[in-house]
Amino acid sequence: MSPVQQRLNETHDAALRSWVPSANQAGTDFPIQNLPFGVFRRAGSAEQFRIGVAIGDQILDLGAAGEAGAFAALPQEIRDAVAGSSLNALMALGEASWSALRMALSRALREGSADEAKLKGALVERSHAEYTLPARIGDYTDFYTSIHHATAVGKLFRPDEPLLPNYKWVPIGYHGRASSIAVSGQQFRRPVGQTRPPGTDAPVFGPCKRLDYELEIGIFMGTANTLGEPVAIGQSEQAVFGLCLLNDWSARDLQAWEYQPLGPFLAKNFASTISPWVVTLEALAPYRTGWTRDFADPQPLPYLDSPQLRESGAFEVQLEVLIQSAAMRNNGTPPKRVSLSNFRDSYWTVSQLVTHHTVNGCNLQPGDLLGSGTQSGPDAAEAGSLLELTAGGKQTIELADGETRKFLEDGDTVVMRGWAEAAGRPRIGFGEVSGTVLPARPTEG
Amino acid sequence: MSPVQQRLNETHDAALRSWVPSANQAGTDFPIQNLPFGVFRRAGSAEQFRIGVAIGDQILDLGAAGEAGAFAALPQEIRDAVAGSSLNALMALGEASWSALRMALSRALREGSADEAKLKGALVERSHAEYTLPARIGDYTDFYTSIHHATAVGKLFRPDEPLLPNYKWVPIGYHGRASSIAVSGQQFRRPVGQTRPPGTDAPVFGPCKRLDYELEIGIFMGTANTLGEPVAIGQSEQAVFGLCLLNDWSARDLQAWEYQPLGPFLAKNFASTISPWVVTLEALAPYRTGWTRDFADPQPLPYLDSPQLRESGAFEVQLEVLIQSAAMRNNGTPPKRVSLSNFRDSYWTVSQLVTHHTVNGCNLQPGDLLGSGTQSGPDAAEAGSLLELTAGGKQTIELADGETRKFLEDGDTVVMRGWAEAAGRPRIGFGEVSGTVLPARPTEG
Repeated sequence: MSPVQQRLNETHDAALRSWVPSANQAGTDFPIQNLPFGVFRRAGSAEQFRIGVAIGDQILDLGAAGEAGAFAALPQEIRDAVAGSSLNALMALGEASWSALRMALSRALREGSADEAKLKGALVERSHAEYTLPARIGDYTDFYTSIHHATAVGKLFRPDEPLLPNYKWVPIGYHGRASSIAVSGQQFRRPVGQTRPPGTDAPVFGPCKRLDYELEIGIFMGTANTLGEPVAIGQSEQAVFGLCLLNDWSARDLQAWEYQPLGPFLAKNFASTISPWVVTLEALAPYRTGWTRDFADPQPLPYLDSPQLRESGAFEVQLEVLIQSAAMRNNGTPPKRVSLSNFRDSYWTVSQLVTHHTVNGCNLQPGDLLGSGTQSGPDAAEAGSLLELTAGGKQTIELADGETRKFLEDGDTVVMRGWAEAAGRPRIGFGEVSGTVLPARPTEG
Repeated sequence: MSPVQQRLNETHDAALRSWVPSANQAGTDFPIQNLPFGVFRRAGSAEQFRIGVAIGDQILDLGAAGEAGAFAALPQEIRDAVAGSSLNALMALGEASWSALRMALSRALREGSADEAKLKGALVERSHAEYTLPARIGDYTDFYTSIHHATAVGKLFRPDEPLLPNYKWVPIGYHGRASSIAVSGQQFRRPVGQTRPPGTDAPVFGPCKRLDYELEIGIFMGTANTLGEPVAIGQSEQAVFGLCLLNDWSARDLQAWEYQPLGPFLAKNFASTISPWVVTLEALAPYRTGWTRDFADPQPLPYLDSPQLRESGAFEVQLEVLIQSAAMRNNGTPPKRVSLSNFRDSYWTVSQLVTHHTVNGCNLQPGDLLGSGTQSGPDAAEAGSLLELTAGGKQTIELADGETRKFLEDGDTVVMRGWAEAAGRPRIGFGEVSGTVLPARPTEG
């Protein structure tokens, strides 16, 4: 058995329990088999942000843990990397370092660990924490990997040709805006801009009327490739640090008017929100499944194909979207689920995205973020955007207390959650990403 | 007269001469009226990169100049900013600081300056320098501001509808890749990827066969706007630090297959090259002209309109493209001019790009780069790409010694130059951006 496989077996042992009691409770997102990374501080404090690992309802402060003498057996470069205030340095170290750190964390946090006394002082309650972006994001790329989403949206934008001829060959992607990505809790003003009302020639200027969310997986890159040097499909997952949840807010009416011929721009770059916790690929290893699409429709080009795709190319991650209106919040009604889908239904896999992105020599860097694109499943109830759930605003969906939605209204909070389950294993979760729509700025037209 | 106007008058006095003799020679890009900023070190050295200002055939090393006691009268924040190894900190300080620094540089470098003895030791010959990117580029956005280019390219991609209905209303732009932007001298491998040969259904994989350049102006942002706070058109130029030259290399065959529906991706992100020198908007002030388009076709929406557009919205900057093949280089034949155009012919102005980009609340940060899009003029000989000059590869252009081109071949070097001229004033130049195509990596298909 390889050392990697040995470590996997040890850290994923379903019988492992933590000395942090809440990590052993059924239904927690953060049992000891998960160990996701984030960057946090005590809410409302002026503390430096620092790297933490979620465990039950607690966060292990890695800076404080290091000072308390944990990780003394790890190489200096790992100890330095986890003492910082973003994950970039750790991301740059590569798979062997991530795995060694995960093993050290698993051993330190399990029942019977000799480190328990040392580490108790390095715990912060999650309910007392606030977060910042887990990494400095250099470049952000958004893909379009759900064939169900692409077909449904294509029907609305191009009824004559919903799925374009390149879709089944090319992992379609485009560059997004890194500066406007924020962590869960983001509140943003409804964007204003140009739209062209149906049946008119000239556009009008004003607040977006068709504001939407998009349910996505975010993929944080770890190790970099040199400009000019592609990452072959067999090595591409080793370059990925982990996954998070991503809400790619979208202004559909702005998008419809601006997107030809160079793609979405102002319709997408006013805000994007990610979850604070990044779940590593090693944590997700037991929750993999084979690539779900028909391999012969069409056979992928060789640079995008590998035996691993068929065995374990996809991720079994349940993805849920919930909405809570201002009225619901005010009267204590919890967010209402509006869809549930699964990342395994993605037409393209994470390894294909990395390889395709670099095949022309483009360089990815530690902390770069790739979006999966909206994750809609094959059934209508699995649609990852309102655009799809309401057939472009032709239908409504029901919230609570008689409220309905075609698109988002001011005050709406959108919550996304994700988790992985497999028989005989604890569930591991992504936590959540939430964001709230504020009214548009007043405009003079 | 305002202090800004006073400073402008003083630093642009056509009679000003520098104690650096080469700055006074006719035809130099860098007379004392220019004073562009870059980041350099002695070629082949392991020195730290540092900020410099081009003057004639010399570079004034601002770090060394500061240590020698120049700029003692400037605020500490400016002295700290110019002692760094990128322009980001200076860019963040804002227009008043940029102007004060320019004035100090003009006074220090002019004939009769008391600083001459102090500064002589801070000069480095430009021919001995190597450069890096002038700023850390957070996000890169590329626009599409030449209606001549948009129409010509539209004819090739969409013969039935060359200019889309949104073009005259929306400054069309899309996000590009920041990580693969490098400074003049960049050498890059011909990209490989998917293309679909005409008349076939399935794509093939291999080296790009239609490799092209795009002649652009790069716009470096100075001061940031807060997420959610647009920059009004009257304030937008104050947020711009300066302009450079930009070659947005493009793989036309990859682009044609991948660009629907989300825009160009791998066709553009393998390499982009910028000039080392950033010419400030204050240096360009005397070379402004009114917006050249017909204001009534259509009347721009109010957020994109201002009296300043009509008075001095555009920039009179000549833009030249030259090609030198490997054979020409080997036998000493200089690069051959293939086009000459002018930035004044841009349909959208710099101030409109900044305002449009932020109107939805998107935040721009110091060091962000905006590309103007390919600058083609109204005449066919003013086309800023081979795609246009060869009508999509249907014609050839002549280089020297009987060589012709439809698209770029391995070993070709593309050189772009830019300069501004006005009656009674010295010419000021951008220097050049050059880049060279290397053969593709071998592929297994």
